[in-house]
Amino acid sequence: MTVATHPQNIGIQAIEVYFPKKFVDQSELEKHDGVSSGKYTIGLGQEKMSFCDDREDIVSICLTVVQQFMQKYNVDYKQIGRLEVGTETIIDKSKSTKSFLMSLFAESGNHSVEGIDTTNACYGGTSALFNACQWMDSKAWDGRLALVVAGDIAVYASGNAQFPTVDGPLSVISYIRALDYAYLDYLKKLENAGVESPSLDSVDYLVFHSPYTKQVVKAFGRILFNDFLRNPTAPQYAEIYTQFSEETLESSYNNKLLEKAFINLSKSVFTAKTNTSLLAARNIGNMYTGSVFFGLASLISSVPSSELQGKRIALFSYGSGCAASIYSFKVVGDVSDIASKLDLVARLNDRICVTPSQFENIMSLRESTHNNAEYSPTGSVDELFPGTYHLTSIDSMYRRKYELS
Amino acid sequence: MTVATHPQNIGIQAIEVYFPKKFVDQSELEKHDGVSSGKYTIGLGQEKMSFCDDREDIVSICLTVVQQFMQKYNVDYKQIGRLEVGTETIIDKSKSTKSFLMSLFAESGNHSVEGIDTTNACYGGTSALFNACQWMDSKAWDGRLALVVAGDIAVYASGNAQFPTVDGPLSVISYIRALDYAYLDYLKKLENAGVESPSLDSVDYLVFHSPYTKQVVKAFGRILFNDFLRNPTAPQYAEIYTQFSEETLESSYNNKLLEKAFINLSKSVFTAKTNTSLLAARNIGNMYTGSVFFGLASLISSVPSSELQGKRIALFSYGSGCAASIYSFKVVGDVSDIASKLDLVARLNDRICVTPSQFENIMSLRESTHNNAEYSPTGSVDELFPGTYHLTSIDSMYRRKYELS
Ligand SMILES: CC(C)(COP(=O)(O)OP(=O)(O)OC[C@H]1O[C@@H](n2cnc3c(N)ncnc32)[C@H](O)[C@@H]1OP(=O)(O)O)[C@@H](O)C(=O)NCCC(=O)NCCS
Ligand SMILES: CC(C)(COP(=O)(O)OP(=O)(O)OC[C@H]1O[C@@H](n2cnc3c(N)ncnc32)[C@H](O)[C@@H]1OP(=O)(O)O)[C@@H](O)C(=O)NCCC(=O)NCCS
Repeated sequence: MTVATHPQNIGIQAIEVYFPKKFVDQSELEKHDGVSSGKYTIGLGQEKMSFCDDREDIVSICLTVVQQFMQKYNVDYKQIGRLEVGTETIIDKSKSTKSFLMSLFAESGNHSVEGIDTTNACYGGTSALFNACQWMDSKAWDGRLALVVAGDIAVYASGNAQFPTVDGPLSVISYIRALDYAYLDYLKKLENAGVESPSLDSVDYLVFHSPYTKQVVKAFGRILFNDFLRNPTAPQYAEIYTQFSEETLESSYNNKLLEKAFINLSKSVFTAKTNTSLLAARNIGNMYTGSVFFGLASLISSVPSSELQGKRIALFSYGSGCAASIYSFKVVGDVSDIASKLDLVARLNDRICVTPSQFENIMSLRESTHNNAEYSPTGSVDELFPGTYHLTSIDSMYRRKYELS
Repeated sequence: MTVATHPQNIGIQAIEVYFPKKFVDQSELEKHDGVSSGKYTIGLGQEKMSFCDDREDIVSICLTVVQQFMQKYNVDYKQIGRLEVGTETIIDKSKSTKSFLMSLFAESGNHSVEGIDTTNACYGGTSALFNACQWMDSKAWDGRLALVVAGDIAVYASGNAQFPTVDGPLSVISYIRALDYAYLDYLKKLENAGVESPSLDSVDYLVFHSPYTKQVVKAFGRILFNDFLRNPTAPQYAEIYTQFSEETLESSYNNKLLEKAFINLSKSVFTAKTNTSLLAARNIGNMYTGSVFFGLASLISSVPSSELQGKRIALFSYGSGCAASIYSFKVVGDVSDIASKLDLVARLNDRICVTPSQFENIMSLRESTHNNAEYSPTGSVDELFPGTYHLTSIDSMYRRKYELS
């Protein structure tokens, strides 16, 4: 047994991501859906959307990313003492995704792995990360590593109770309100940690949960509005002070003028602190629990490791319902190995573009067969990245079989 | 802000339980179901089964028990820094039960509470407890208390994909296999902690997850079989040594003779170490995540606090899928206040006995209306314990309203 000396710098040592190989172009989708040109690409800020067919489900996706993670970083399954899955995608009503993942550990003989699934909409992965870090920081830690998996298959559908029912406009305000309170709490924590007059200036990068990237642009402006409320007479707000000096958090949730003003005012800081983290979100779409970590992966993939050294990265995680947190950490040590293993840009470019009508067919197939027993998926295995776990059959007891492509 | 001095003796300070007021008698149910007399009462070891009608769901049940907990122990909602729910009962496909519970915190102004839901069949509550303890033992701890909720509505139904599909005999072997490995791991931990030749003798009480109490009788015998394998020539096994000296863990999962022999051999130790913890299980039925904690509550309700002082209590938690743990702790300090607040025996006796056919009607009502929108429950509010949250309506967006009776 490893003797556990108390670890320094508990944090994220390695990251792997996975997204499906097929995508639909958002401007093509605008035409196909008959909405005005620019609605998805400018209005929502999305370029491409990755999606999977009936060959993949939440279990296969998690199997894929865990297996690739272990292989790329050359980690032995025996080294893992905690495995935690944050997801809101449910196949089995009671078996956890973590249990399915344990099949990967079987060969190593390691059956003693703490942790299960945590769920709260898109917040689950963050909670899983917190649990893993706290485990490592507690007497329960046995010296082994923790692996956190945040995975989901995001589908919005209407008139179908199988998918989460979304009240869009309400969910958007809820996101902003949660951001306000999470930011206030975060500033208090910085203050308690000795940071004087904490504000947006106190962090170098700010990564947001992104349902679509336009929401993040708004969220960033909202952060600046929060700073404004704490220090309205600062010179940077001179232009807008008179117009918004009476506003409060509560009065302003539907104030479009205010929203626009703070988006404009925050533009250059947004470019410096947040825009690079939206690479994956803009090109893949909403990833629920994975979204904020894809943001982190995008940042690491876009900014050179040397530039990131000692920088404070804050993450805003939000899950409808709602649960939200802002937390931050500092970059300690080289992250260029993570960037090269992620190989994000190349992998994004290596996808297959599918027409909107093919996309629609695949979505209806998935919807109509979603809960089927005795089902054999029909999606082409050739349209998967190499090393992708995929579903081969579902038997009459709903048991699913997977294979590696 | 409270300055958090590192806590000693992290553990369970207070317990509250809740079960519905209606029950069906198991010997009456035998007659009604046309099974042989004794099958449920002797074969499965169950006397009564509590159940709820369409007035209650997982949210109302958790609201009830949290509200009663806070009131009985006079805890302010502001004192809670972590709230964690272990459950496998899903209403909302993405919103966590924890989010619903936060409505109880609203009045106090405490919106900063870590933790969400953890899920893995009946194991969720244990994982929630571990997370809470590790939080308290880590730098993330902010000096406040953690509240762990383990709640479920257990229903086994056939031909309905809404409920977990159970392969009974397989799940029973899986339980025993998980017990074997959890016990081996536990013994290793005791050894690492300096206990010499750890065995059943090393623990004073052993509380099991109980799908039905007969399974626990078998599980207890199985623990003795594990001890036998480690030390077969000990005098206590003299009678059976020759018969079972060739057996291994794997060879014996279907060996009924062996099962019976070890049940017989363990009878008196079972009575001393486990039987008292089955009070609630025998009288309420399977409680999924709550089961093992109801076991602990039963033990505290049955054995005087003075007798429990300094004793080591081990808990076996199991969730299909599977995830399982054995862990133990020592009783430090008076627990008679918990026992009197639980008031378990009196509350069990204060229930309403319902006939099997009434029971069946209520079950089919619940099944047929389980996913309804725009629904008004019809169950009688008078048949609830005072202080029970109950459902008053579900609107067209599936939003549920609750009231306190
Ligand atoms: C986000 C959502 C509410 C948008 O609603 P909608 O009615 O489809 O779209 P809207 O008409 O409001 O248009 C969205 C934006 O695109 C803009 N837009 C529309 N057409 C446009 C065009 N042709 N060119 C440029 N912009 C355009 C709109 O002005 C609007 O901008 P605004 O957000 O600054 O007001 C909807 O997509 C939704 O429900 N999404 C899922 C919910 C979600 O993700 N919530 C977040 C949970 S974390
Ligand atoms: C447990 C389960 C498999 C029992 O299956 P079953 O076919 O209904 O019942 P059985 O015929 O096996 O009878 C159960 C026991 O009662 C005994 N029994 C049956 N009739 C009896 C009678 N009249 N008097 C006394 N004992 C009787 C049987 O001998 C058997 O004993 P055994 O377990 O020692 O072999 C079934 O109830 C089930 O699927 N339960 C849900 C699954 C579950 O809870 N799993 C645990 C997950 S943690």
